[in-house]
Amino acid sequence: MLIEPGELLAQINSPADLKKFPKEKLVQICDELRNFIVDNVSIYGGHFGASLGVVEMTVALHYVLNTPQDQLVWDVGHQAYGHKILTGRRDQFHTNRIFGGISGFPKRKESVYDTFGVGHSSTSISAALGMAIASKYKGSGIQHVAVIGDGSMTGGMAFEAMNHAGVSDSNILIILNDNCMAIDPNVGALKDYLTDITTSHTYNKVKDEVWKLLGKFSKFGSSAQEVISKVEGAIKSAVLKQSNLFESLNLRYFGPVDGHDVNHLVEILNDLKDIPGPKILHCVTVKGKGYEPAEKGNQTTWHAPGLFDKVSGEIYKKTPSKPQAPKYQDVFGHTIVELAEQDERIMGVTPAMPSGSSLNIMMKAMPDRAFDVGIAEQHAVTFSAGLATQGLKPFCNIYSTFMQRAYDQVIHDVCLQNLPVVFCLDRAGFAGADGPTHHGAYDLAYFRCIPNMVVAAPMNEEELRNMMFSSLSHDGPYSIRYPRGNGVMPEWRTAFQQIPLGQGRIVKEGEEVAILTIGHIGNYAVEACETLSAEGLNPAHYDMRFVKPLDEELLHEVFGKFKKVITVEDGCLMGGFGSAVLEWMMDHEYQAQVKRLGIPDEVVEHGEQIELHRACGFDPDGIADAVRSMSEVAKSI
Amino acid sequence: MLIEPGELLAQINSPADLKKFPKEKLVQICDELRNFIVDNVSIYGGHFGASLGVVEMTVALHYVLNTPQDQLVWDVGHQAYGHKILTGRRDQFHTNRIFGGISGFPKRKESVYDTFGVGHSSTSISAALGMAIASKYKGSGIQHVAVIGDGSMTGGMAFEAMNHAGVSDSNILIILNDNCMAIDPNVGALKDYLTDITTSHTYNKVKDEVWKLLGKFSKFGSSAQEVISKVEGAIKSAVLKQSNLFESLNLRYFGPVDGHDVNHLVEILNDLKDIPGPKILHCVTVKGKGYEPAEKGNQTTWHAPGLFDKVSGEIYKKTPSKPQAPKYQDVFGHTIVELAEQDERIMGVTPAMPSGSSLNIMMKAMPDRAFDVGIAEQHAVTFSAGLATQGLKPFCNIYSTFMQRAYDQVIHDVCLQNLPVVFCLDRAGFAGADGPTHHGAYDLAYFRCIPNMVVAAPMNEEELRNMMFSSLSHDGPYSIRYPRGNGVMPEWRTAFQQIPLGQGRIVKEGEEVAILTIGHIGNYAVEACETLSAEGLNPAHYDMRFVKPLDEELLHEVFGKFKKVITVEDGCLMGGFGSAVLEWMMDHEYQAQVKRLGIPDEVVEHGEQIELHRACGFDPDGIADAVRSMSEVAKSI
Repeated sequence: MLIEPGELLAQINSPADLKKFPKEKLVQICDELRNFIVDNVSIYGGHFGASLGVVEMTVALHYVLNTPQDQLVWDVGHQAYGHKILTGRRDQFHTNRIFGGISGFPKRKESVYDTFGVGHSSTSISAALGMAIASKYKGSGIQHVAVIGDGSMTGGMAFEAMNHAGVSDSNILIILNDNCMAIDPNVGALKDYLTDITTSHTYNKVKDEVWKLLGKFSKFGSSAQEVISKVEGAIKSAVLKQSNLFESLNLRYFGPVDGHDVNHLVEILNDLKDIPGPKILHCVTVKGKGYEPAEKGNQTTWHAPGLFDKVSGEIYKKTPSKPQAPKYQDVFGHTIVELAEQDERIMGVTPAMPSGSSLNIMMKAMPDRAFDVGIAEQHAVTFSAGLATQGLKPFCNIYSTFMQRAYDQVIHDVCLQNLPVVFCLDRAGFAGADGPTHHGAYDLAYFRCIPNMVVAAPMNEEELRNMMFSSLSHDGPYSIRYPRGNGVMPEWRTAFQQIPLGQGRIVKEGEEVAILTIGHIGNYAVEACETLSAEGLNPAHYDMRFVKPLDEELLHEVFGKFKKVITVEDGCLMGGFGSAVLEWMMDHEYQAQVKRLGIPDEVVEHGEQIELHRACGFDPDGIADAVRSMSEVAKSI
Repeated sequence: MLIEPGELLAQINSPADLKKFPKEKLVQICDELRNFIVDNVSIYGGHFGASLGVVEMTVALHYVLNTPQDQLVWDVGHQAYGHKILTGRRDQFHTNRIFGGISGFPKRKESVYDTFGVGHSSTSISAALGMAIASKYKGSGIQHVAVIGDGSMTGGMAFEAMNHAGVSDSNILIILNDNCMAIDPNVGALKDYLTDITTSHTYNKVKDEVWKLLGKFSKFGSSAQEVISKVEGAIKSAVLKQSNLFESLNLRYFGPVDGHDVNHLVEILNDLKDIPGPKILHCVTVKGKGYEPAEKGNQTTWHAPGLFDKVSGEIYKKTPSKPQAPKYQDVFGHTIVELAEQDERIMGVTPAMPSGSSLNIMMKAMPDRAFDVGIAEQHAVTFSAGLATQGLKPFCNIYSTFMQRAYDQVIHDVCLQNLPVVFCLDRAGFAGADGPTHHGAYDLAYFRCIPNMVVAAPMNEEELRNMMFSSLSHDGPYSIRYPRGNGVMPEWRTAFQQIPLGQGRIVKEGEEVAILTIGHIGNYAVEACETLSAEGLNPAHYDMRFVKPLDEELLHEVFGKFKKVITVEDGCLMGGFGSAVLEWMMDHEYQAQVKRLGIPDEVVEHGEQIELHRACGFDPDGIADAVRSMSEVAKSI
């Protein structure tokens, strides 16, 4: 069922249509846009709270700016649903995040209004600054706006970009969308500072007066430059006696302002358009604004709630008919607590993903031993390295895709020093609906080339637990990657058992063809083997468990016995697990036919995980086909 | 010849020895330490200006702290020579940076006083915070100090760490070593801000008075907590009316103070020891302090000047008897200007390496088209992506080892969007004397697994120029890696020629064995072939030029003709160029014996490049040996 947009929204197919409405209609447009988002997400799913929080900002920006000539960059992009709906994608919006549908994030290929593809945090200021400096070089005189949340502001590259922006004379406006939230509540000194500014009444009052003054001046025909030069002294002396954090970086600071007053935002944005140079507008917003269950309830839950009843606010829960296997993240979350209860060296670290990683279980149980360090993957890793130097055993849990952000720290601060940090890479392999920015496609390749690194991946919950347990007795870095979603063992709380470093296992004896798998994807091979068995084919299946060190004994067995080998990984084929097997085979002078299944060397779009696995040919059918194509037995049938 | 230390320095074999001296002797000890550094570096080489700038800070820290129990972390580590000399390595100091000698950086394996291995910038606060939180957890109550330069402070992870430190109640002292320099002069808004603080007389005066007050209070037996609570009001109201940048992040700010007044530093550090919680001491220092040519001359030159005459300050230049081949970096520096003169889309970007990358040539010639963005690799890449969205052609020049810092940005902001950023990776392969933290060992592996990325490496200057030229007509990311040091073509300014994407070339026809090389290391294969020729062996040699896309036509020729193939790369064997060749071979169902030469999967220490190549078996002799070992002809001779 397609959602009907409201009366005004139905007439808006582009920002040009929006501009046709008088300012008085903007509140109604905001209402309709908000409703449209609520209706759609409740039925089709997706990210929720972030977009509701910027409805007014979105309408105001497209009302004031001359998009797409003016360049608007959304940081992360969870909040860009309103932007998508106003820029010609209203009628495709129900395909959001669906295989073949529109992306959940701004994406250059999708629309000329999406000036920069996003997904990971803290990139918007750098990108917008590049655009702004390019415009200046080309003399195009357009506007450049980066919208960035207070959570994303904790990522170091945002600071790097402000350090550069502050000495550029580029025309860039940074809108700080301050809602005190990342996915989980934002943390850190910056958040406290922003809260201080926002809650300081004197400060607000004086700022408001300055703002009113600014408004008055521009109404009487003075140029904004004149205005700003007149009020700047006042701002400096009355308000910012010494500079605030952003003024320290030479960004002209405006605000804080109410991010839900669309008419005020339009005024302010109009004024700021004429003020040259780098500047920041601090908007205070509420995540989930306008939908009471989200606004007043648990904002983390409502970040991406799944489907829900719009009227009651009830989030639908799937009630499985039989006991469900747990999510891998929960196995991690419960297991680290279980281990930490017995081993006081264990600490937990997450960069802003307490609920996503389930480290929140440990944060609740052992608050002095589990740390959310903010959106700060680099710091998370080197902080963990610092803990490790003191004899502790940090488990640093970072999604595979975000681990890219801390690659240097993994090499330079952990592996070169051989420090015993345990890396837990959640969401390894295809991320699913989040798409290419979030696929954990590369970690096997980029981790296995680092000296001292152990690269492990469990095929099921029990192996995840045992790898976590086994990492404790390894005196060096140890990485464990596992996918988004559920495992395969409803009864997963098995007793801990040591897995010797680099030891794989045979899942199924067989003939002619050997399938070597790494990680959860091995369960597909089990399915494939069942299918093939009915056809009279009997491949062997090995769960290698480690990409590094490889189980050499097992590989001697495999290559001694089989001349046809298939490797399967939920990771990139270039340099990944299959590549490691090839290297080993050649170094040990075996000759065999090896077919590698995995993620091809291209950008794979969004969709359900199984859809993507199928598209890449390593779902159970794909694996079975690979066996058939190699098997003489199959050919003879 | 070994340098004789001065009278007092000769008695100092550990910080405990230093502490035996009365405070009155510290100035003399500083003089002797400074002299010892000047004497050694002038004769044996190494980094220079940074260590001279922190002589007093180093002496004061080891005088006040209880090292090695107290944990002292040096950011980057160029400045840690004095630290090494005072902590038992005075008599090994002449082996600094030499194969088998001590490292040019702090290194955990080398000394218990080196609490954290460094080399890359901006890691110290994260590491020290990890240590401090571990201490708190363990109740050990020791001191934790991170010494970080204003250049390193521009790196985003320093900000991430401060954001966390500010809300921890850890006992950490950050010493901001503010000398307005990275290797080149520091840039950005933060630098300007620090200069403002430092040059503001009122500010200094009030701060000094607060300091004096603090000193007095602690002398009369009040606890430091009382002292701080008494003076804090004064600080806040008189000095920091509104918080400064660091106070915004909830770090107690002290300073600025003269970093060359050793007795004052001792006083201050003693006071700060007793003040709990996270705090920052802003020390103003001069890079090269106390050695006039370095202090007053070009500080960038004196960062690591090479050998020099101590008395005259003359830096020795090698005067070659015949025309020298240029440094690769200079080929880049001159070529980008040459290209940019003809193509107005070209822009240059460097994160704080204008002189190291030779982008300073373009910065001088075209100041509006070449940008030093500070120590900020992440921003450098995404800023380049922003430029590229506007139809420009940014050349983003980052050392291979530092590119690790921007890995996510390369994937997420450039490659997923297929933006035409040209990455020039200088110092690819072994870095030489800088050692493992700086070896560019992994880039071939970590770049080739990224979709859309072109991975190229020139064998000589002409190929570098032609790759830069050819990258202009490629509509997507294009990386070019080349080593530290000189090329092989004294006459290198050849006319530009297009190299078709992914096209390798045959260097030498041959028989039985084919050598496939990538990049500059191919010149070793040329040497090897000359040696082998005298022995009657005649291997073929192919300069592949591209790891991705591979030259498939050429590979069909190679594997069609040869059953014995050697791959050679100045990069890690795991997942690198040889691995790519294996994958291709297997995907195309060739069977051959392939021996891969390159950097093994271990941490390779420092030394001359050729020493390291030899140790890893891919110097000319190593390549020749590999051919001999595979060749039946050789066996029959």
